[in-house]
Amino acid sequence: VFLLHTMEDSFKVQEYLNERTPRSAVIIGAGYICLETADALIHRGLTVTLVSRPKTVLPTVEPELGKLVEQELASHGVELWTGVEIASIGHENDTLSVLSTTGQKLAADLIIVATGVRPASGLAVAAGLKTGQRGAILVNRQMETSMPNIYAAGDCVETWHRLLRRYTYLPLGTTSHKQGRVAGENAIGGNRSFAGVVGTQVVKVFELAIARTGLLESEARSAGFDPFTTETVGWDHKAYYPGARQLHFRVTGDRTTGRLLGAQLLGHWKSEVSKRIDVFAAALFHEMAVDDLSALDLSYTPPLSSPWDPIQMAAQDWSRAIRKQQSRLELANV
Amino acid sequence: VFLLHTMEDSFKVQEYLNERTPRSAVIIGAGYICLETADALIHRGLTVTLVSRPKTVLPTVEPELGKLVEQELASHGVELWTGVEIASIGHENDTLSVLSTTGQKLAADLIIVATGVRPASGLAVAAGLKTGQRGAILVNRQMETSMPNIYAAGDCVETWHRLLRRYTYLPLGTTSHKQGRVAGENAIGGNRSFAGVVGTQVVKVFELAIARTGLLESEARSAGFDPFTTETVGWDHKAYYPGARQLHFRVTGDRTTGRLLGAQLLGHWKSEVSKRIDVFAAALFHEMAVDDLSALDLSYTPPLSSPWDPIQMAAQDWSRAIRKQQSRLELANV
Repeated sequence: VFLLHTMEDSFKVQEYLNERTPRSAVIIGAGYICLETADALIHRGLTVTLVSRPKTVLPTVEPELGKLVEQELASHGVELWTGVEIASIGHENDTLSVLSTTGQKLAADLIIVATGVRPASGLAVAAGLKTGQRGAILVNRQMETSMPNIYAAGDCVETWHRLLRRYTYLPLGTTSHKQGRVAGENAIGGNRSFAGVVGTQVVKVFELAIARTGLLESEARSAGFDPFTTETVGWDHKAYYPGARQLHFRVTGDRTTGRLLGAQLLGHWKSEVSKRIDVFAAALFHEMAVDDLSALDLSYTPPLSSPWDPIQMAAQDWSRAIRKQQSRLELANV
Repeated sequence: VFLLHTMEDSFKVQEYLNERTPRSAVIIGAGYICLETADALIHRGLTVTLVSRPKTVLPTVEPELGKLVEQELASHGVELWTGVEIASIGHENDTLSVLSTTGQKLAADLIIVATGVRPASGLAVAAGLKTGQRGAILVNRQMETSMPNIYAAGDCVETWHRLLRRYTYLPLGTTSHKQGRVAGENAIGGNRSFAGVVGTQVVKVFELAIARTGLLESEARSAGFDPFTTETVGWDHKAYYPGARQLHFRVTGDRTTGRLLGAQLLGHWKSEVSKRIDVFAAALFHEMAVDDLSALDLSYTPPLSSPWDPIQMAAQDWSRAIRKQQSRLELANV
């Protein structure tokens, strides 16, 4: 039974795989690391069952896209147990087993657990630094802790969120690098400010890339926005040019102000999913309206896009849906 | 001898290829259409010679990248005649020939000419509308011509350039769509304004995608900026994940203000070149400083990027080079 948090953890798993050649694995968790692990173990020829507490895997995107991820996992032979909570992990002779709270039992040669991340802020606490959400170290925008001249950055600190306009806990490698640059520069006398995140993330699972930026509809609602979400399916490039593939967009904007709040995108990992979400991320960074995405001068050539990039078609779908809804409301008010 | 401007032109070429099965072609011109045609004719098994008046092909990017495009063309068997001006096209028996101004002669079964685009503004001129650069129709930001209630959009009109802060002639499909939307909406009583272009373009040539946005260094200088350009070579994703490929960036920024002025990018066409240039395009749209690109929350997963996207590493290279130059100047002034 392996926990997967550090590089050392992964080396131990690799060692076990090489030396003991297990034939079946149960993965507990349904986030990035678990899905990547499922992908890797299938490639190594193991039988893999993924046990997810959420009803749909990859809860960092909405269930509509999570369902498509499940199809991808299933099509590569991953067995899925979703909406299942683990009660215990057992051991009989040479075989491990997991037992769900509803009494289902699953045997395996190897169990991998990768659920949640906790900030390693023990040293900071011992030194008397203040901590906040989930025990992450409190920092200001200069990445200075509650103790002057002590800077902190990375998975151990709270992170400024540009859309939420508050600190949150969102540990990601990209953010760590940005924060480290700010902390380092300020520690030697500079005066740089961390601009904050908009929540951009991407993962590759088998042939899919799944990306998001900004807020999910539920997160936007909790933050006091008036979110509205549309789903759009479009081609990654002109369909007359060979090899066109479908992209699944979910665009969330504020019904009242028209402001872009978030986007989710799923498609083939060679369909520029990752850098397409980055265009949304750049738009979020600048607080653009959904409707203004159509004004962006994005590149086009038939093998790679359309004169309106699918990003813009998804944004236009959102605008159309909002207009439709508003004219219905006006009609209802007549 | 075929001119390539319209769809009809291309159908005629296709017909000729099917019926007469020419074995050799000379292509005159070194822009997008010519390079795409070279690619297509090589795929059809013809011997292809490309004759370029500029010393380097694809003058929409700087010669440093043009040279890499030439390597790609050559590696696929395209013969290159660069810096060559055509004096005449001749005909002997069944064979065509082109004669350069320096007396070089080249025989071929097929000659394709695709040099320059001119606005089809004849109807507008006949109707008394005012025209400007290269004869393109004058329009305002509402896409209204010099005659009230007459709107125009597309390759026949002048285009507002956000960086140049003036109208220019830059006919592209993406721009036509944007302008058409504005013109159409205003023609039926709306009040939408065309936000303008930043000059984003991309083309695929064999296995390469070559993209640009903003201004080349020479264009920036002509426009009164104080441009400085750096070239950066980086991996499209973490090199430990299989299949990493090199990206060639050229970043141009203003030495005085630090503002981003343009970017060029060349790499494998499956390396997200096109949507990476779009991140620069979004940054240009918002008049970002080169240094601020590092603040963008871009997506990362090892198969698709790095914690600093290569976009950001290229921007950081620019900042470092500027700092180095400035500290040299300061030392020189001591």
